[in-house]
Amino acid sequence: MNLLVTGSIGIDTVKTPFGVREDCLGGSVVYFSMAASFFTPVRFVGVVGEDCPFDLKEVFLGRDVDLAGLEVRKGSKTFRWAGTYHEDINERTTDNVELNVLAEAPPKIPAQFQDSKYVFLANTHPGLQIELLGQMSEPKLVVADTMNLWIENEPAALKGLLAKIDGLVLNDSEAKLLTGKQNLLTAAKDIIKMGPSFVVVKKGEHGTLLVTDDGDFFVLPAYPTEDVKDPTGAGDTFAGGMMGYLAGQESCPKTKCAIRQSIAYGTAAASLAIEDFSLNRWQKAGMVDIERRFKQLRTMIQF
Amino acid sequence: MNLLVTGSIGIDTVKTPFGVREDCLGGSVVYFSMAASFFTPVRFVGVVGEDCPFDLKEVFLGRDVDLAGLEVRKGSKTFRWAGTYHEDINERTTDNVELNVLAEAPPKIPAQFQDSKYVFLANTHPGLQIELLGQMSEPKLVVADTMNLWIENEPAALKGLLAKIDGLVLNDSEAKLLTGKQNLLTAAKDIIKMGPSFVVVKKGEHGTLLVTDDGDFFVLPAYPTEDVKDPTGAGDTFAGGMMGYLAGQESCPKTKCAIRQSIAYGTAAASLAIEDFSLNRWQKAGMVDIERRFKQLRTMIQF
Repeated sequence: MNLLVTGSIGIDTVKTPFGVREDCLGGSVVYFSMAASFFTPVRFVGVVGEDCPFDLKEVFLGRDVDLAGLEVRKGSKTFRWAGTYHEDINERTTDNVELNVLAEAPPKIPAQFQDSKYVFLANTHPGLQIELLGQMSEPKLVVADTMNLWIENEPAALKGLLAKIDGLVLNDSEAKLLTGKQNLLTAAKDIIKMGPSFVVVKKGEHGTLLVTDDGDFFVLPAYPTEDVKDPTGAGDTFAGGMMGYLAGQESCPKTKCAIRQSIAYGTAAASLAIEDFSLNRWQKAGMVDIERRFKQLRTMIQF
Repeated sequence: MNLLVTGSIGIDTVKTPFGVREDCLGGSVVYFSMAASFFTPVRFVGVVGEDCPFDLKEVFLGRDVDLAGLEVRKGSKTFRWAGTYHEDINERTTDNVELNVLAEAPPKIPAQFQDSKYVFLANTHPGLQIELLGQMSEPKLVVADTMNLWIENEPAALKGLLAKIDGLVLNDSEAKLLTGKQNLLTAAKDIIKMGPSFVVVKKGEHGTLLVTDDGDFFVLPAYPTEDVKDPTGAGDTFAGGMMGYLAGQESCPKTKCAIRQSIAYGTAAASLAIEDFSLNRWQKAGMVDIERRFKQLRTMIQF
């Protein structure tokens, strides 16, 4: 089934203990689409400036990613992000952010994308997420990401968004900030009361917590790879694997079992992506590797 | 089978966001023995001063804990610890430590305990751990705990200990400190090279990582209880559940499957213990509750 994603496209400069990559391709919609495209056709919506050095057709060559929603905006500049990961690679410092085109009007959702059944609203201003969602005619499963900036500065808009979505994906620190609760399970349950029927709390190297509105919870550790080179995009890759799997199911994508499996697929995809810079890992890895790691995840938690 | 444990007995003063308990019973051998006693007979070895206000016979009434190794030392004072847990209950500050009797000679292992097959050496000076282990005639499975103090100040003695034990249990920060490796899987593999055939890395609320000398690894999340009142002794309760289960097995306690299951039992026991101060949770909880949580752990990770 069709999966639509809206989000950022970025020119990233990333420093990690394992090297530096200047002006490489990044952004939530990019990481998401690559991972999701192993599972289902992806409808890509995002905007760059005319300075964008990347040929996204080339990037997604051979992948089922429809770029009809990619806008190259005249007179605008592409979003830029620079960050440094510390020796403890779970810690990072943001060195530079230039919102550029992201601070302007959002891209239009093309007419032929408006019937999308599966929608992922990557992190941006919750008002924009609502506006983008409003352009969909009959979405079946809508999941959004958010961040501390909107939790702190746009609580009313975020509240409006939460009432309209099926699932929310966010970090552990964001879940605590949103609810004022230090216990993650309590925090996730509080978020459920705000609207979504499920919440996925991403804990980085510590894995993921899922809480659903029927009181079920699921905890999955991250795959403990020794070969972490660049964690940038791990969360969006996770979301891409998760939503891609759900959209690829013929029926009942909202069952407990399907959501749990989707989280394992997202975890598997993210564990691969962080083993190289930018999207480089996908030059050598594909669905076979995702499936292998999915099975390893199952084996490593069995008792 | 007989399980022997040596460790500390303490008078604890604990502050958490949920209350304060002054001069309550604590110490590694106490927490360990209570949890282990649900699985197997426990041989308790520890020393207190003559000021000790606790009647340990009363504490372990109805539990199969042999206190023949409990020494009440004349003229000495009992170990004291005081700590404050923060709003994020995973963070704590040590307010006061008085080693007292722990800084003196260790207790003697009673003659009738020296044939113990299962031995847990709770955290103390690694030289003492070696000395205590030397009093055992033919242990079958020896597991030790350690801490940053010994890693930093007694590396030679610790190295000697690691060559003599089957398993090491330690925190994530300690595993990183011991090996100089930031990646936990790499760190655990490096520890295996130092001697133990398995390493259990405790990650607090994030669960546990097991690495064995045949290259296997196992990751188990913590049970996400909402009702954490006092995490003191969680690690020792975990070790008690783990070692208790292993010692309770008729055969093959070192198999991959048995060690994985033992970690799940340790996790189940610890998740209960932290729901009240000191040993109070065990006034209302027992093996039925441990078994229930063991099964819930299995359910919550299934996909």
